[in-house]
Amino acid sequence: MSEPALLAVDWGTTTLRGALLASDGKVLAEHAAPHGLLSIPPGGWADAFAAEFGAWLAAHPGLPCLMAGMVGSRQGWVEAPYCACPANLADLAAQLCWVQPGRVAIVPGLSVEVDGLPDVMRGEETQVFGALALLGLSQATLVLPGTHSKWVTVQGGRITHFATYMTGEVYALLRQQSILARTLPADDAAWVAEAFDRGVDQAQAPGGLLHHLFAVRALSLFDRQDGPWLASYLSGLLIGDELRAQALPAGQAVVAVGSALLTDRYQRALAQQGHPVRQLGAEAAWTGLLALSTAARG
Amino acid sequence: MSEPALLAVDWGTTTLRGALLASDGKVLAEHAAPHGLLSIPPGGWADAFAAEFGAWLAAHPGLPCLMAGMVGSRQGWVEAPYCACPANLADLAAQLCWVQPGRVAIVPGLSVEVDGLPDVMRGEETQVFGALALLGLSQATLVLPGTHSKWVTVQGGRITHFATYMTGEVYALLRQQSILARTLPADDAAWVAEAFDRGVDQAQAPGGLLHHLFAVRALSLFDRQDGPWLASYLSGLLIGDELRAQALPAGQAVVAVGSALLTDRYQRALAQQGHPVRQLGAEAAWTGLLALSTAARG
Repeated sequence: MSEPALLAVDWGTTTLRGALLASDGKVLAEHAAPHGLLSIPPGGWADAFAAEFGAWLAAHPGLPCLMAGMVGSRQGWVEAPYCACPANLADLAAQLCWVQPGRVAIVPGLSVEVDGLPDVMRGEETQVFGALALLGLSQATLVLPGTHSKWVTVQGGRITHFATYMTGEVYALLRQQSILARTLPADDAAWVAEAFDRGVDQAQAPGGLLHHLFAVRALSLFDRQDGPWLASYLSGLLIGDELRAQALPAGQAVVAVGSALLTDRYQRALAQQGHPVRQLGAEAAWTGLLALSTAARG
Repeated sequence: MSEPALLAVDWGTTTLRGALLASDGKVLAEHAAPHGLLSIPPGGWADAFAAEFGAWLAAHPGLPCLMAGMVGSRQGWVEAPYCACPANLADLAAQLCWVQPGRVAIVPGLSVEVDGLPDVMRGEETQVFGALALLGLSQATLVLPGTHSKWVTVQGGRITHFATYMTGEVYALLRQQSILARTLPADDAAWVAEAFDRGVDQAQAPGGLLHHLFAVRALSLFDRQDGPWLASYLSGLLIGDELRAQALPAGQAVVAVGSALLTDRYQRALAQQGHPVRQLGAEAAWTGLLALSTAARG
């Protein structure tokens, strides 16, 4: 196999992923484990890093390593202070937080402030720059769906603005812990596309999210819809409310980055509103880390 | 003491309240217990009723009893089918659900339907008609805050429309179970009025509730505000979003019915937007039950 140029690591709250990347971006090997921030004791990061990646590093002495995600949070290995928006790839590369100087570094997260209220991301910035590189874009509107979805505006190669939506977390809470949970199935295995579409559509109607949610309860009281329909409708209401808040210009193209399970739903909801969508998987993180590594050396 | 004319009961999900009322509405005696629907085994309602109110009924043979609330739900004593809106006091009185004919009855809840989506209330309808009687109104906009807040429109003495908001339940979930809970105090003992006001105000700004919520997290990451401030701000965001969805006409007066803890918050938020508010306590239910009892005899 080609010689690896970078050990790329995406170390999140509950999981970690790593990849050996060739200088042309080819993924030579991958590793994933459910060993996220929450499973690592204070002071245990260097040991955890060695346990996960020691074999690769022994096989490739001197290989540089770049890490993104919650590994750089206050509860992480080393706190990598947020880089303020607007920020481009070079800004991030200049503010890498070195764990082992010249060898192992953590990518800083981003912060932005609107009307005195801050917002933050950590890990998604790397996926954004990876997506821009993969698609050859310097201007884009991106969504990175998840527990806390991020909507990102890029102009002239710089992230100029972003906003976080607690859509995924609120969905999980309502789905599992609220009164609505009583009539919903245990998982989303039975997906009802028409119900999801109806939810997206209803979320655009007057009334507000807190009201629209209650219809899930009322529909079940009258036995109008079954559990799988209602779960898909609930998902549509929440993603639809997130889209309503964007107030995207008509026809605005969107890049959706993340797991296909989620980006498929966003693509469907956005298409319903006339927005073309390009989807990219989480491999955008590898491209982003390689680009940052190159920029840091430059 | 005067002779009681009615045993009035408000039997909810987690608690029950009862009162002996004179024919002029005077409360002669009251009883409350944490014995709501959830604590009563199937088939156990008659026994529970006797255990709670047997002594009063023995002392006043033949006293009529009217009950409102979840006692009339599918999991209650007898299911009292919803009465469709528009509905006035006479409509409700005509559809009382008799448990012991001529003696003990349950007030039906109300249903309404907009664009194929139903909404329901059970118990609040009685408080609404009580509030109208107490204030001498036949036209009003009312809010009944709670786990599931109700906004009610009354025209010509009839409830013509209402809408449920899951505000209280979503607040509790976010407050106790979400990532936001980590930096919030255990209870709302330390109330910060200025933070609540800021939340109400921010909820009117573009961005949407799912986004505004995340600022609670970001503000704590930067140590900008402490836990009590953030909890009050969160409450303001949710109540503020509920108000935003109302899009009330400028200067529209509102009647708030419920516990002072909640109606005080709604009054404050509504006043911030220029709406005069009159508050009534849950005793409005007694007035409503007495009026229904009179209408049923008439």
